[in-house]
Amino acid sequence: MRRALTLSAGLLLAGCAATQTAPKTAQEPLSADVLASQVGEKPTPASPPTGQQWLYGSAEGAVASAQAYRALASYVRAVAISAAPHKQVVLAEGSTPAAPRFDDCGDKPLAAVFDADETLIWNLGAMRYMAERHMDFDPAVWDRWEKTGAGQAVAMPGVVDAIAAMRAAGVTVIVNTNRTAANAKGTEDTLRAAGLGEFRHGETLFLMGDAPDGASKDGRRARIAARWCVIAMGGDQLGDFAQAFNARELSVADRKALATGGPIAALWGHGWFLLSNPVYGPSIRGGFADIFPSDIQWEPK
Amino acid sequence: MRRALTLSAGLLLAGCAATQTAPKTAQEPLSADVLASQVGEKPTPASPPTGQQWLYGSAEGAVASAQAYRALASYVRAVAISAAPHKQVVLAEGSTPAAPRFDDCGDKPLAAVFDADETLIWNLGAMRYMAERHMDFDPAVWDRWEKTGAGQAVAMPGVVDAIAAMRAAGVTVIVNTNRTAANAKGTEDTLRAAGLGEFRHGETLFLMGDAPDGASKDGRRARIAARWCVIAMGGDQLGDFAQAFNARELSVADRKALATGGPIAALWGHGWFLLSNPVYGPSIRGGFADIFPSDIQWEPK
Repeated sequence: MRRALTLSAGLLLAGCAATQTAPKTAQEPLSADVLASQVGEKPTPASPPTGQQWLYGSAEGAVASAQAYRALASYVRAVAISAAPHKQVVLAEGSTPAAPRFDDCGDKPLAAVFDADETLIWNLGAMRYMAERHMDFDPAVWDRWEKTGAGQAVAMPGVVDAIAAMRAAGVTVIVNTNRTAANAKGTEDTLRAAGLGEFRHGETLFLMGDAPDGASKDGRRARIAARWCVIAMGGDQLGDFAQAFNARELSVADRKALATGGPIAALWGHGWFLLSNPVYGPSIRGGFADIFPSDIQWEPK
Repeated sequence: MRRALTLSAGLLLAGCAATQTAPKTAQEPLSADVLASQVGEKPTPASPPTGQQWLYGSAEGAVASAQAYRALASYVRAVAISAAPHKQVVLAEGSTPAAPRFDDCGDKPLAAVFDADETLIWNLGAMRYMAERHMDFDPAVWDRWEKTGAGQAVAMPGVVDAIAAMRAAGVTVIVNTNRTAANAKGTEDTLRAAGLGEFRHGETLFLMGDAPDGASKDGRRARIAARWCVIAMGGDQLGDFAQAFNARELSVADRKALATGGPIAALWGHGWFLLSNPVYGPSIRGGFADIFPSDIQWEPK
């Protein structure tokens, strides 16, 4: 049995439509705890996966978040006080990342829209629980986490200050997450306990099930943009910005080119803000031929 | 034998003084290629490590770099055209991250100082070579890489535009890396082939061996700041900003608190710019008790 925490969690949390499986590669030698796990025992590993070490433990992982949120808050404040007519940063209906259009805001009130998991909050409780048990991502565990995790998830570095700055500038903070509508209260409690303030389901909190397109966030984004002028979005996966990035037919390289090479590239840091998450999600997939250009074939001579 | 590519590479590239070993945990089940590796064969794994998938392959990894470099270029240009007297962002001699001081620049010419590896360039050739062979970080391979890697390392997303913008604003771009002085020509060639322009050893390129403090970059930073007004620094490890972050006695949590909780925290995104690197380095270490706060002990009920 291959473990696929990385991709499975990504599928659920980020609503990826990709079907390609990307089992993590066994880079590690045999060890006593791996051997033990094969015969039914699963002792706690010596340390969390490297991605968790970097993201949740290191100064560098914390700085990456704080730095992004400082830039975001500064951008949002500048736009909020600008006298220029505002435009949505949500793609206009029918437009695409390759040929984007953005609607005028008219006199809608200003808002900024964020994913929750590994964007506003670190899911430390659930991540520790699963990593200590060598667990695959388990939807039943995650469902309990959504219901009962309040107090065991923490605000990411820079988030509390950025939210305060945005609210002080008159910008409403809205969450659009693939946590399920059935667990709305648990997620409201989790966000409050992390110090992010009050979010209300259907007003400032949008969950999977709120629109008919399932794990896509596009339907909810459209509903939000119908009422609000969305001047910034933040997320750790491209699906937090547009579902088109999750199209099945996009290769790893195509997806990267679409996000960084086309007209949409100008939005990063100017309306669209990415948080680094090397722990899970559709960002983490691909074999050597996907990750490295074909002309990269060095060897020591 | 445990593989420790992550930390070993970090020690060499980032000059970490830490002695704690942080072997990666075996999170993976047995598989045919791991079994084969135990009897002397090392078939190519199915995919690169997750950190490499995220950093080198994903749209998200590319966006994180481009977003940081856009913010950096914007900051550098704003400072460069400002009429206010400039200050160094290199810590003044004798000051520390906990009690920082920054010298006035006087009329020194403006510069911005960058680490090279996984800050300006992605070392795709060497990383692919080692990952495909399940290799530990090998200093002999890396030495060949420094000498012959030109053309197989690529500029990170956003770097070429940021360098152009900084140079257009009259800011000299300087590299301070722990590649060795003995391989100066190889590194000059590598930077040029990646499209970053001309760097000259001892003028705009500082290497390990150029100052008596070895893998610390402090000595070289002091030499650079003696001649230049350093208005920005970029790196993927805290040692790219001050060697004090690599002190042996700092725990994972202490190091994080020092970087994000003290007076130095205000510099991130305002003079100091971090690039996300979950692949290697002193950022990637620690057991569960280091990575997760002691009060994070959730389980599904």
